Amino acid sequence: MSLPILSLKNNAERRLRAGHLWIYSNEVDVALTPLNAFEAGDQALVQTASGKPLGIAVLSPKNLICGRLISRDAKHKLDKSLLVHRFNIALSLRERAFSEPCYRLIYGDSDLLPGLVVDRFFDIAVVQISSAAMELHKDAIVDALVQVLKPSGIVFKNDGSARAAEELPSYVDVAYGEVPDWVPLVENGVRFEAPVLAGQKTGWFYDHRMNRARLAPYVAGKRVLDLFSYIGGWGIQAAAFGASEVMCVDASGFALDGVERNAALNGLSESVVAVEGDVFAALRELKAAEERFDVIVADPPAFIKRKKDIKNGEAAYRRLNEQAMRLLNKDGILVSASCSMHLAEDNLQNILLASSRHLDRHLQILERGAQGPDHPVHPAIAETRYIKSLTCRLLPS
Amino acid sequence: MSLPILSLKNNAERRLRAGHLWIYSNEVDVALTPLNAFEAGDQALVQTASGKPLGIAVLSPKNLICGRLISRDAKHKLDKSLLVHRFNIALSLRERAFSEPCYRLIYGDSDLLPGLVVDRFFDIAVVQISSAAMELHKDAIVDALVQVLKPSGIVFKNDGSARAAEELPSYVDVAYGEVPDWVPLVENGVRFEAPVLAGQKTGWFYDHRMNRARLAPYVAGKRVLDLFSYIGGWGIQAAAFGASEVMCVDASGFALDGVERNAALNGLSESVVAVEGDVFAALRELKAAEERFDVIVADPPAFIKRKKDIKNGEAAYRRLNEQAMRLLNKDGILVSASCSMHLAEDNLQNILLASSRHLDRHLQILERGAQGPDHPVHPAIAETRYIKSLTCRLLPS
Repeated sequence: MSLPILSLKNNAERRLRAGHLWIYSNEVDVALTPLNAFEAGDQALVQTASGKPLGIAVLSPKNLICGRLISRDAKHKLDKSLLVHRFNIALSLRERAFSEPCYRLIYGDSDLLPGLVVDRFFDIAVVQISSAAMELHKDAIVDALVQVLKPSGIVFKNDGSARAAEELPSYVDVAYGEVPDWVPLVENGVRFEAPVLAGQKTGWFYDHRMNRARLAPYVAGKRVLDLFSYIGGWGIQAAAFGASEVMCVDASGFALDGVERNAALNGLSESVVAVEGDVFAALRELKAAEERFDVIVADPPAFIKRKKDIKNGEAAYRRLNEQAMRLLNKDGILVSASCSMHLAEDNLQNILLASSRHLDRHLQILERGAQGPDHPVHPAIAETRYIKSLTCRLLPS
Repeated sequence: MSLPILSLKNNAERRLRAGHLWIYSNEVDVALTPLNAFEAGDQALVQTASGKPLGIAVLSPKNLICGRLISRDAKHKLDKSLLVHRFNIALSLRERAFSEPCYRLIYGDSDLLPGLVVDRFFDIAVVQISSAAMELHKDAIVDALVQVLKPSGIVFKNDGSARAAEELPSYVDVAYGEVPDWVPLVENGVRFEAPVLAGQKTGWFYDHRMNRARLAPYVAGKRVLDLFSYIGGWGIQAAAFGASEVMCVDASGFALDGVERNAALNGLSESVVAVEGDVFAALRELKAAEERFDVIVADPPAFIKRKKDIKNGEAAYRRLNEQAMRLLNKDGILVSASCSMHLAEDNLQNILLASSRHLDRHLQILERGAQGPDHPVHPAIAETRYIKSLTCRLLPS
């Protein structure tokens, strides 16, 4: 192995030994191993101040997080062989957890592949890269995926906002085989097609799979409202689980075309209505029209993207959930979700409590959901946990 | 209404208005309404310092928590009519959530019936009372249950430790119909019989139902160890979900008789072994014998019963989980549960992380489970949330 060395300052190894994978630039002994001697995407052997090896990191030398451990074994650097090994370990979990090959196959740090996300839709793989090192290994990623999955198509959906911080270009590129505009998947026994080339993120949000499955007991025979529906992940499943009527609201006409496509795919066009518009405006209009629902799903995009958004973001969650509660029938269910890593579950619960008291209702939290096992949490890296879903019952006080 | 008045001090109404149900003795204006003028179990109309009504509370005048709101409506005091009303509201949720009539029907404060727990096993109701007011209303509770459930038997399992604080006697008493020693129930499609008269608590722990259901993807064809098995809630379900072999360990021979009974009931006697002994000693012996398991469930009794137990209790959780991890095969699953209200989920996660690092393993948190919808959380009352279950995967580092 001819890797250069990256030396840490005294005690800077503690967090890594305790399980974390990230190295901050102020933890590097730059007198001994200057960061500006490295290029973005380089690999280095990380050592403690006393020279003990900690493993191999991939580097983004200009960034605050200047390195991420890719392996604790100094013999295994990032290459096709390591990718194949990690893909197989990740695959064995997903094959155990799910009956259909539709899931997040690779979830970055949690699968010990920082900077890489891969979503699988049967024989199509959608890859998202957010680090310079993974960008340098694009060919190896394709080769490893072909070896492990034998896919019919692989697309790089490399247009995420995280790429700018690594000075990586934004693009969508089919790197292998053929990838149609709409790609089939199955979630909780319900069929969908996702726009993996033109949609949000990888085209689908597998992270709420288990929470959507838990709609089943609450929606049969009920009128359901799905806010920020995107292409109908929650709403179509509610209809498939027996809802009498589902209204999906989203600001994107393209997303609502997806709702109609997916409703038709399951023979549910009769019970699903797609409404285009700003969700907050729609909530006001529905209130004015005295519309009421038995079950409302509020799964907005992240209102809190950075720590500095917390105050405004929490106010937005409060507004959304309280307006939704106003549209509930007497013994109604609100499924309140958040994908904001910076919104703690307890804070979401407190927001819901405050809203319910403001409306003089008694709130019961029936279920608390998290991201599914294809989005494992790395317990040392708080950022890997982000999905919350609270199933609430609202009763007269 | 001829209820006496209980006056609060200035601002003492804030917590109640924000959703809480409990009144602390130092919040009462005892100059105006002396607590020693009340008897245990009395009801009172609660008023703010400025004379605004807040609702009706049931009182335990000698206790730190001297009152609990039973109704925010001054017209509805605790009586058979209120019990029937609350039972019906609670029943409608459980009937929606579960396909079989086997669940916690009433969960105290969360169902607005402080001091009362009722578990239902088909047509048998097991009641636990922990407040003087509910004790005074035993006959009304029986009448209301008969009206709402038409049960064949009702038992008061009034031997819980919470009763001493209210100076209530400890007893088990069949109050209506007939109640056999072993009572059938179904959980996640698996049949059990629970010792409702002689067992722990109400005889069964419905609180982990949803977490046990989530064993299914991980146990098929695997060797499973169930620690603190009681009568086999986890272990028998693992066997029913296809585990090749299940070892249940418990210190109680009576509980293990239940394991064998429940294994036989499901035709699973061949794959379930019951081992009597102290769990920590058993873990050492299994280690010495080089036994290994694919899946281990560690669901101990509460190691932290009071705040002052936190340090010792966390050490016990650490010891238990780390010893369990040592018995796992290479790509093993640990389901680590806790019913200690004083152990935050994040602390349990940190304990698991520390254990995994100590053994030089990589830990993935696959699923985080909570109590099911028959144990709704009252969002203003932290004590109503207590069940945690983390499904962990342990990999080579």
